Amino acid sequence: MPDTGILDRLRAAVDANFEAETAFLADLVRFPSLRGREAPLQDWFARAMAARGYQVDRFTLAEVPLEAHEKAAPMVGVDPAGSVQVVATRRARGAGGRSLIIQGHIDVVPEGPAEMWTHPPYAGVVRDGWLYGRGANDMKAGVAAMVFAMDALRDAGLTPAGDIHLQTVTEEESTGNGALSTLLRGYRADACLIPEPTGGTITRAHTGTLWFRLRVRGVPVHVAVADTGTNAILSVMHLIRALQEHTAALNERAKEDPSFSAVRNPIKFNPGIIRGGDWASSTPAWCEVDCRIGLTPSMEVAEVMRGVERAVEAARAGDAFLANNPPKITWHGFQADGYVLEPGSEAERVLAGAHRAAFGAEMEERLSTAVNDTRYYGRYYAMPALCYGPGGEGNHGFDERTNLELLRKTTLSMAAFIADWCGVEGA
Amino acid sequence: MPDTGILDRLRAAVDANFEAETAFLADLVRFPSLRGREAPLQDWFARAMAARGYQVDRFTLAEVPLEAHEKAAPMVGVDPAGSVQVVATRRARGAGGRSLIIQGHIDVVPEGPAEMWTHPPYAGVVRDGWLYGRGANDMKAGVAAMVFAMDALRDAGLTPAGDIHLQTVTEEESTGNGALSTLLRGYRADACLIPEPTGGTITRAHTGTLWFRLRVRGVPVHVAVADTGTNAILSVMHLIRALQEHTAALNERAKEDPSFSAVRNPIKFNPGIIRGGDWASSTPAWCEVDCRIGLTPSMEVAEVMRGVERAVEAARAGDAFLANNPPKITWHGFQADGYVLEPGSEAERVLAGAHRAAFGAEMEERLSTAVNDTRYYGRYYAMPALCYGPGGEGNHGFDERTNLELLRKTTLSMAAFIADWCGVEGA
Repeated sequence: MPDTGILDRLRAAVDANFEAETAFLADLVRFPSLRGREAPLQDWFARAMAARGYQVDRFTLAEVPLEAHEKAAPMVGVDPAGSVQVVATRRARGAGGRSLIIQGHIDVVPEGPAEMWTHPPYAGVVRDGWLYGRGANDMKAGVAAMVFAMDALRDAGLTPAGDIHLQTVTEEESTGNGALSTLLRGYRADACLIPEPTGGTITRAHTGTLWFRLRVRGVPVHVAVADTGTNAILSVMHLIRALQEHTAALNERAKEDPSFSAVRNPIKFNPGIIRGGDWASSTPAWCEVDCRIGLTPSMEVAEVMRGVERAVEAARAGDAFLANNPPKITWHGFQADGYVLEPGSEAERVLAGAHRAAFGAEMEERLSTAVNDTRYYGRYYAMPALCYGPGGEGNHGFDERTNLELLRKTTLSMAAFIADWCGVEGA
Repeated sequence: MPDTGILDRLRAAVDANFEAETAFLADLVRFPSLRGREAPLQDWFARAMAARGYQVDRFTLAEVPLEAHEKAAPMVGVDPAGSVQVVATRRARGAGGRSLIIQGHIDVVPEGPAEMWTHPPYAGVVRDGWLYGRGANDMKAGVAAMVFAMDALRDAGLTPAGDIHLQTVTEEESTGNGALSTLLRGYRADACLIPEPTGGTITRAHTGTLWFRLRVRGVPVHVAVADTGTNAILSVMHLIRALQEHTAALNERAKEDPSFSAVRNPIKFNPGIIRGGDWASSTPAWCEVDCRIGLTPSMEVAEVMRGVERAVEAARAGDAFLANNPPKITWHGFQADGYVLEPGSEAERVLAGAHRAAFGAEMEERLSTAVNDTRYYGRYYAMPALCYGPGGEGNHGFDERTNLELLRKTTLSMAAFIADWCGVEGA
């Protein structure tokens, strides 16, 4: 925990800058940084960081050897050369202090029908202590917090004694390749903090995620002899039911997972996008569904993939259309392991102290049934990876919003964490 | 049956023109006359008929008072002002002979994925006695037949003694408003022939068709607490299952229909287009499915519509998402009655004689579980409406093709029918 003097200086700086931080977050939200369209935000962010005096490395996924890494995930329909990453570095005078990566993703998921939003999804509207918009909470609030935590140190006259990399990445919502690319680019540190909107809790473990596309295509039985089960839409329904049963079986196995044994049905299966057919009076000959399925940290990605394939193959037997037209599975995104932040790390201890100082309460832990980027740093590159940040609601839904008071407090706890982890000059 | 001399002269003319007829059909197929995009074909057809000396009336659906007719169907997403109809009239010298309308639709249904076609769908390729393409059989072959049946009379030196209207219409595959518009425009005759691809059979009865769009939209249960039944795609699956059960009940009732009692399950329910969600990892908050359901000629359209609405409403109770988010039903196309061609008409007797003369075999009858335009002429405007024409396969599917030898023979039987029904001068 920082000493009281430092904490007070940081709090004063966070408070003094909070109007600017809120405006910065609203600016971030106004970029519709959907997958494949993140570059304008990243360009703007790179300029903003350069203006603050950071040394900025801006590169695309086409510039790193992703395909050579076993944990890279396939990207379908997105050009790696358009997927821009930013690493803004502030080097310490010496090399003695502990270094830190703070990383946020700036890709957002689609907003859905505009009319289902109370406030326009890319307007950055502030009402009653909340900032609204797609990505406001997941996780542009965390990105604003990391920038203004560093600004608070600067304005408090404190210089971190360790190197700091502020990283904004893409692809967190689809593959994770953005986070991986920063590691392949060479960035390392003694700890990593990812300020996802955890509501001020530390993420003890998260499940993994797989994406796959089921495509059913073939010559249907003629409508004149069709009763049921002979059209591609109905066949996809059949496969979805089979995968629901498969998920139930996986959740039985999940009871043995050390981290998730107490969570009821931690494995979520979600058919998220469906499209098929082109005419109400034609028997549809094709249908596709994009799906997401989870896995516990103790399950192997390859094994769960084979399980999905076996479940789909087994379902063919019960369907007239599929028997003659084998469905195609494309693994078109996430092939993400789960991750467990083992308790007891020095980084977590320091963060808990900073949280206690800022919030006046203990930092609680949570389990997440959704993936985040910490697995790259923590599971594959052996640095303690802390997922901890502000909070709100409506991620991936409507009226997404982040709580501004939580943002303010988390900005302070992050500033205090930086000061304690890296040490500061000027204290 | 025409006398042998006339039949021989017609046969010689049909044969002499058959290469041109095949080329004409290929030209028709090369127009991708999908719904809303039929106008270029109609313009071309109008010019072709004017060049043959017909008096041509070209008008759009915006020029007739469709909305005033109870049997008009809603058009969604299509501009009536772009939906062009053509009536090409050859008036007899006197008004003594029996008049005749021959009508064909030139709209086609979407072709689906191009790679599933052996020959390109809009190329008009001829192979081994078949002409391939979307609409080649359904029903541009019939349109070619009606034009070249009339050409055969002309080249045989025979002038019909009754007025003839050759009509090409749109919207047969979606509403029927094209056929209705010719009646609202004022065209009437003593009989109507629609040369749908019946393979040289007469259609004794056809079922009706309804189109509806089910739209599910609402705030889903959060993915963190979602197991099953809480996403819009799964809810649409639930509604489809309910409508399958409803269809089974309708097919029980269909056993009482005088025309279709011997047909197993004449009521077909088809979910034809589905679309929903926008992200594999977001719980989908909306899903739409475009459906088609049939009815027997003895069922009332309004009653079947209410039945579908009740089935959907009843299904809400069993679904967590739908209980809070009522699905919306849009009746967005067909509201078509079935039709029975009562046996014994003079028109059918004359057609049977022409068929016998051309084919050397009796004209058989069929029952159709798909709708066609005859209902307007026969059921609402009290003229005998004969559905009889060439034949092939692949309607609404892949590798649609029409049989050229059947086209040649049907062109002859249609020419003979015109000669016998209207009478001819120059015999």
